[in-house]
Amino acid sequence: MPRFLLTLAYDGTDFSGWQLQARDRTVQGVIETALTEIMGSPVRLHGAGRTDAGVHALGQTAHFDCQDIRASIPWQCALNARLPEDVRVLACRRVADDFHARYQAQAKTYEYTLWHTREFCLPQRRRFAWNCGPLDFTAMEAAARLLTGEHDFASFQNTGTPVRSTIRTVTAISRHPGPTPHESVWRFTANGFLKQMVRNLVGCLAACGRGRLAPDEAGRILLAADRALAPATAPPQGLTLISVAYPDQTLDLTEGLL
Amino acid sequence: MPRFLLTLAYDGTDFSGWQLQARDRTVQGVIETALTEIMGSPVRLHGAGRTDAGVHALGQTAHFDCQDIRASIPWQCALNARLPEDVRVLACRRVADDFHARYQAQAKTYEYTLWHTREFCLPQRRRFAWNCGPLDFTAMEAAARLLTGEHDFASFQNTGTPVRSTIRTVTAISRHPGPTPHESVWRFTANGFLKQMVRNLVGCLAACGRGRLAPDEAGRILLAADRALAPATAPPQGLTLISVAYPDQTLDLTEGLL
Repeated sequence: MPRFLLTLAYDGTDFSGWQLQARDRTVQGVIETALTEIMGSPVRLHGAGRTDAGVHALGQTAHFDCQDIRASIPWQCALNARLPEDVRVLACRRVADDFHARYQAQAKTYEYTLWHTREFCLPQRRRFAWNCGPLDFTAMEAAARLLTGEHDFASFQNTGTPVRSTIRTVTAISRHPGPTPHESVWRFTANGFLKQMVRNLVGCLAACGRGRLAPDEAGRILLAADRALAPATAPPQGLTLISVAYPDQTLDLTEGLL
Repeated sequence: MPRFLLTLAYDGTDFSGWQLQARDRTVQGVIETALTEIMGSPVRLHGAGRTDAGVHALGQTAHFDCQDIRASIPWQCALNARLPEDVRVLACRRVADDFHARYQAQAKTYEYTLWHTREFCLPQRRRFAWNCGPLDFTAMEAAARLLTGEHDFASFQNTGTPVRSTIRTVTAISRHPGPTPHESVWRFTANGFLKQMVRNLVGCLAACGRGRLAPDEAGRILLAADRALAPATAPPQGLTLISVAYPDQTLDLTEGLL
C-alpha cells in the first residue's frame, strides 16, 4: 500500500499530548479521525515520537498507509479542511513502502523558550514560554557544554516506557534570540531523546541560570546517571518539536517559520 | 480619592471584548472583579476605549479611583495575583484626580498582523493574525497613503454608538516585519478611531493587496463617506491595541514587547 509522510505543526495547549487516548483529545487522535473519514476505513498514524500534553510542534512527522484507490487524494488539503485549527499539515509526501517515521529518524531538534526579564509573562506568550525570571546565560552555556556529546542521559529521563539504552548523542545545545526581547530560545539537537529529556535538560540549565546550581554540578549530575539528583522538569508549554531528520532527506519544512 | 492608571496587556481570544457585560467574560469585567475584591467595595474601571471581542492589547489604559486607606496597596502585584493569565497589568501609576483615561487620550496606535504566504496559518499564530493569502504590498502602501491624514472616515465606521464627528486624523500607516517571515504588521496611529475603523481600513488595504480593489478606489471610497462602498471588516484576531498617548506622558510601556 502507498505510504505517505506528513509534516505537522500544532499548538499543543489544548491537546492531551500526541498519543491516542480513549477519551482525551490528542493530536494523533484528531488526525486519525480525519484520515479515517477521508479513507472510509480505519487508518493508523505512526508518529516520529510522542510529544507530551502542552508541547507544540512545527515539524513533527508521521506516516500512514493509503488504499491504492485513494493514493491520488490531495491529502494535505483534504486533511487541513477537516482538522481543527490548532493542527495543520505543512506537507505530505509519498515515501517508500517500508519507510518508518520513528525507526528511520536520525535526529530531532527541539526548541525551548524561556521568558526571563519580568515577573510576569505577556498574555500573548503564556502558551509558548516558561516564565523563569532573570537568568545568567553564561552559567547556562557552561552547563550546556558539559551536557553536549555522547553520554548516558539516565539522570534526565523521566520514568515511563523502558528503553534498551539511555545513551544518546546531543550534537548541539545553542541559545538564540526569542520572538520578544524578553525571551531566549534554547535549541537541542540529538540522535534521539529519552522521555521528557529536553524538559529535564532545560530544568537543569534554568537551575544554573538562576544560580541554584553551579554549572559543574550539571556535569556531575550527568555522570551520576541518577534522575533523583537532577532539578525538576521544566513545564511543557515552552517546548516545540522543530524537525525530524531522515537519512535521505531532511524534512525540515519549518525553516524560519517561527 | 486617589486615581490610578493601569497599563494592560491581554490576549483577547477568550474575552467578549473590553466592555462589561452581564453574562459574558470581558476584560473590564475580570479587572473590576479583582479590583472590587481587593478594595472591599465596588470599583468602576474607565478604559481608554473599547476593544472588540477577539482583539488584543499590549498597551490598553484604564483608570480607577481608590479609597485613601487603600492607596498604598501594590496594585500591580495585587491585581496580577488575582487576574487570569490572559490579562496582565504591565504598570500602575498614580495620576491627577481629574485625569481621564478616555477623554485625555491624544492618540492611539494599533497594529494589525496579516499572514500572507501560505494557504494555511501556523496553529501557533492563528490567534494573532488574519490569513489573507498573497498580498501586493505596493498596492496596499499606495492605498495607505490616500487614507493617511485628516479625513471624514464615515466609510470606515461600523454602525453602533453615534459620534459627534466622523473626522479623524490618521497620522501614519506603516508596514513592519512580522514575528515570522510569513506575516506583515500594519501600524495605524490616529488622534482617535471610529468603531471598527482599523479593521475596516485593513479590510480595504487587504482588498487592494489581493487585487480586488485598485488603490485609487480606496481614495474614492474615503471621499464618498459611505460605509456601504467599503470592503468587509477584517476579522478581530489580527488586531492589537499597542499604546495610548496622553499629553504629559506617552504611556508606551510596551515598546519592543511583541
